[in-house]
Amino acid sequence: MAIEQESVKGNDPDKAIISASLTGALTTRDQCEAIPYTPEEIAEDAAAARENGAAVAHIHARTENGSPTFDTDIYQRIYEEVRERTDVLINFSTGAMHEPVESRLEYIEAVEPDIAALNMGSMNYAKYSENRDDFVFDMVFENPFNEIRDFLTTMRENGVKPELECFDTGHVGNIRPFVQNGELEAPINFSLVMGVLGGIPPTVENLAHQVRQLPDDATWQVIGISREQWQLVSAALAMGGNIRVGLEDNFYLPSGEMSTNPELVAKAAEMTRNVGREPATPAEAAELMCIEPPHL
Amino acid sequence: MAIEQESVKGNDPDKAIISASLTGALTTRDQCEAIPYTPEEIAEDAAAARENGAAVAHIHARTENGSPTFDTDIYQRIYEEVRERTDVLINFSTGAMHEPVESRLEYIEAVEPDIAALNMGSMNYAKYSENRDDFVFDMVFENPFNEIRDFLTTMRENGVKPELECFDTGHVGNIRPFVQNGELEAPINFSLVMGVLGGIPPTVENLAHQVRQLPDDATWQVIGISREQWQLVSAALAMGGNIRVGLEDNFYLPSGEMSTNPELVAKAAEMTRNVGREPATPAEAAELMCIEPPHL
Amino acid sequence: MAIEQESVKGNDPDKAIISASLTGALTTRDQCEAIPYTPEEIAEDAAAARENGAAVAHIHARTENGSPTFDTDIYQRIYEEVRERTDVLINFSTGAMHEPVESRLEYIEAVEPDIAALNMGSMNYAKYSENRDDFVFDMVFENPFNEIRDFLTTMRENGVKPELECFDTGHVGNIRPFVQNGELEAPINFSLVMGVLGGIPPTVENLAHQVRQLPDDATWQVIGISREQWQLVSAALAMGGNIRVGLEDNFYLPSGEMSTNPELVAKAAEMTRNVGREPATPAEAAELMCIEPPHL
Amino acid sequence: MAIEQESVKGNDPDKAIISASLTGALTTRDQCEAIPYTPEEIAEDAAAARENGAAVAHIHARTENGSPTFDTDIYQRIYEEVRERTDVLINFSTGAMHEPVESRLEYIEAVEPDIAALNMGSMNYAKYSENRDDFVFDMVFENPFNEIRDFLTTMRENGVKPELECFDTGHVGNIRPFVQNGELEAPINFSLVMGVLGGIPPTVENLAHQVRQLPDDATWQVIGISREQWQLVSAALAMGGNIRVGLEDNFYLPSGEMSTNPELVAKAAEMTRNVGREPATPAEAAELMCIEPPHL
Ligand SMILES: [Zn+2]
Ligand SMILES: [Zn+2]
Ligand SMILES: [Zn+2]
Ligand SMILES: [Zn+2]
Repeated sequence: MAIEQESVKGNDPDKAIISASLTGALTTRDQCEAIPYTPEEIAEDAAAARENGAAVAHIHARTENGSPTFDTDIYQRIYEEVRERTDVLINFSTGAMHEPVESRLEYIEAVEPDIAALNMGSMNYAKYSENRDDFVFDMVFENPFNEIRDFLTTMRENGVKPELECFDTGHVGNIRPFVQNGELEAPINFSLVMGVLGGIPPTVENLAHQVRQLPDDATWQVIGISREQWQLVSAALAMGGNIRVGLEDNFYLPSGEMSTNPELVAKAAEMTRNVGREPATPAEAAELMCIEPPHL
Repeated sequence: MAIEQESVKGNDPDKAIISASLTGALTTRDQCEAIPYTPEEIAEDAAAARENGAAVAHIHARTENGSPTFDTDIYQRIYEEVRERTDVLINFSTGAMHEPVESRLEYIEAVEPDIAALNMGSMNYAKYSENRDDFVFDMVFENPFNEIRDFLTTMRENGVKPELECFDTGHVGNIRPFVQNGELEAPINFSLVMGVLGGIPPTVENLAHQVRQLPDDATWQVIGISREQWQLVSAALAMGGNIRVGLEDNFYLPSGEMSTNPELVAKAAEMTRNVGREPATPAEAAELMCIEPPHL
Repeated sequence: MAIEQESVKGNDPDKAIISASLTGALTTRDQCEAIPYTPEEIAEDAAAARENGAAVAHIHARTENGSPTFDTDIYQRIYEEVRERTDVLINFSTGAMHEPVESRLEYIEAVEPDIAALNMGSMNYAKYSENRDDFVFDMVFENPFNEIRDFLTTMRENGVKPELECFDTGHVGNIRPFVQNGELEAPINFSLVMGVLGGIPPTVENLAHQVRQLPDDATWQVIGISREQWQLVSAALAMGGNIRVGLEDNFYLPSGEMSTNPELVAKAAEMTRNVGREPATPAEAAELMCIEPPHL
Repeated sequence: MAIEQESVKGNDPDKAIISASLTGALTTRDQCEAIPYTPEEIAEDAAAARENGAAVAHIHARTENGSPTFDTDIYQRIYEEVRERTDVLINFSTGAMHEPVESRLEYIEAVEPDIAALNMGSMNYAKYSENRDDFVFDMVFENPFNEIRDFLTTMRENGVKPELECFDTGHVGNIRPFVQNGELEAPINFSLVMGVLGGIPPTVENLAHQVRQLPDDATWQVIGISREQWQLVSAALAMGGNIRVGLEDNFYLPSGEMSTNPELVAKAAEMTRNVGREPATPAEAAELMCIEPPHL
């Protein structure tokens, strides 16, 4: 059904893996009421997202009042609550600006999610307000090679599939040492993140270029941050890519209406079918990424 | 709303022009019942397509039994029947394999449609059957420069906007003599045709490359032939492109169901809204292409 | 030594194959005195080109007064005179505007050169004079699929390696039927021809795009027609490509001075060394292209 | 003479600006005897480089024993010694790993070189040893937006042309806020740096992509670090780019022989002529970059 095109790489041209980024770390219910905080709320959203077409739930833990937390117990409870309800693949964040690596490794080792995100390079991470001609925030997002290596080692030793988050062309190139020394095993699983000021700008041209840099058997998804998300989803689906939507990345439907995690996934599933593809099940996603299928 | 990206070129990032290719020349009601033949049938489909989001109707004339015809009277009747019912922009084909240039110029001169298609180069035009290991058809589609020049002259003299159909990278490059001598005036209006064996293969990578070759102020649409159409539509919408759908190019909805011209346009309009854009009206399309707005 | 880059494809990053296009069909000694006509003259140039770094001699036969000829005896004599003097790989043209396929197949079958060129698609083939605002020539270069197939069959049956001349993106795509039915065997050997009006324009951007379309194990060279040749040579050498120079394609050194076949090859060899690569020997070229090494 | 290609952007297709990176900060005479340390040595190399084709000298100050220094007096003496001998444009580095911004702004303000380099983003800056399976060094090169802004302001107030060093695709995108608020004025002058682990990998494909991201009127050069330099020079010259060579970036001629600044520039000038272009004079370079021509 799908175009025979190089950009499919290791993905399935007929099935698209939809990931739901349920929580994120930075936004709050003041901005968007539907963000889940507690393990139960997160698990309910995960189950509803699965129902609507998601195969993966990407999760940052929160305290009950919504602050970001790296507490292993909370991550454990999230894992259990989700798994009780649904077979969706569980993907934990490991990113943070000011949290030491050790505390971000601990819950990965203890809980062993199916997948964990891993930031593949350093960059500026900023937001600019044209009105005020000033930077709303202006940080250096530090992910040196030795930290990347520590994450890779822990994930490999614990059977956790790394999801390599690449915010720029060089971040994709940063796999080279770990391919050479065997710490990264095929099929490598990439997220091409676009739309953060400091990283690669969110254009289809740039997405196509990022995909060209990937190994032939790599799996990949696009992560579009904020308003450009739906256009990047539309392009990625055409290219044979997988996609991520959810309140971590963008609150709004294409119409501009504020939404919820299950609704955003439903729209992503509709768009998947509009290019003649079907949403992959968690079992199909697991097979493509060469990980153990989820068991309820 | 749209991404600030180079690929928008002279298009409107917020509005997508949807063209409906209602008839074509090669297919018949034996293959797809919903193909309109008579001027009245064509005009009814044009009006319904306009209702569902189309701003342009691209038309090949047919006799009552469905054969292709280059008869000026029939083209005149089509023009009148369409214009009686709707303000959609009227775009006539000029392509043919074995019809002399003169007869294809005559109806353009006589009827003066808003837009006329113009093939910008020669190529093989073939279909290969893998099962039979043979070519279903294997032609040389001849469009030498002197014929291109004749069409351009006639169109310019009659106030007809050329739509440059480019089946390969070199066809885009073939504008060079006509830009240098002033026969092509900005904004040049391109159709990037993909999916014919002999021309550029229908991949997003190739679409992106074709768009890169266009002048900065050019307007453009993608024309995807057969099954790859919806993926190319999905990619083009993300890139800021205009799109064409209709029974000339493809009979099927993304689901695989055989369809009709109005339904195909409705699906294209839905996909346009899914990237946060709106279908352009005929008046908006006319303004973008610098042509006279249609009058009922 | 060379960059690890995708564009190398099946080439050798450390060795560049230099082809010398000694004669061509269209130009005469009135335009450039150094064009060889007779088998002896051609063979002398082949030997001198080999001495200066060429691994392949690409040859069109000529009569004694310089007219193009498809005479099998002359091709046979060329083969013998060249092989008497040097181990350069012998590559015969098969292209022509108005010569029937049969006569172009005959000398391939009879003489069995190491390599033969094969045009992979149809296109306009023209030259435009800006001063006169007119086309100096304006032809349709016809190479339908059934003729391509005939050439492929004859070459395969006679142990002649095809060199696929691709003047546009679609021409590369035209390999699809012949890959599917097994008539084209890896490593496929491509020439990316650039600089003819009607085909793909001669830019580095376009060269890079053409290379991206090739199979991973394909060998490739760039053929730049006229003044743009040296820039395309410079880019191709950087990309890991092979190169062609010679009086068929361009008479002039980069300085603008009219030159000879051996001098043009010497300049190409110097440029090869300037990117840290070495000219391949005929034996090395044969191994890369999977053909029998030449025997004196 | 040059190809009409988009990649030329604001450069001169007929003239290439050669920059000589004479010193750098990290390497020593133990590694390469010919590195100049003192103002006099640097000025002698600048004059010899100018003689051989360089239009710009890019300089990091050193103490007498070769350590990097940010001392304003030394930068002042370098400026005077160079200007006494030659009209080459003077370009000062502003980059450093652990030196505060203030001390890097001071000598720019005090000495007012023609041009000053400015790093446009953060990234990992590392070197990996395959033999030892370890990182030889592994740093985060921090250049947050507020520091970039400080440099831009100081340069603009002192009539110093910024040379934007971009190590990745996102770094090119980082101009956006400064274009919007007018702090960056056209023609923007880019250096596309390739070959540092952590930044964009040094392929022609990546170079072409970086160039595509630039504004149409931007000037640009490629800076290839270490062995890939000559290939990137070869590609950039073909694309209409400017080039940088010198002991800061690479000690070796394409043959592998260790070299000197004047010899490296002579090779770059030879390669420039091999694509039919000429080295620009300092006055021609100044005009292209819209800066005051140098006065002796
Ligand atoms: Zn996250
Ligand atoms: Zn048509
Ligand atoms: Zn030839
Ligand atoms: Zn420097």
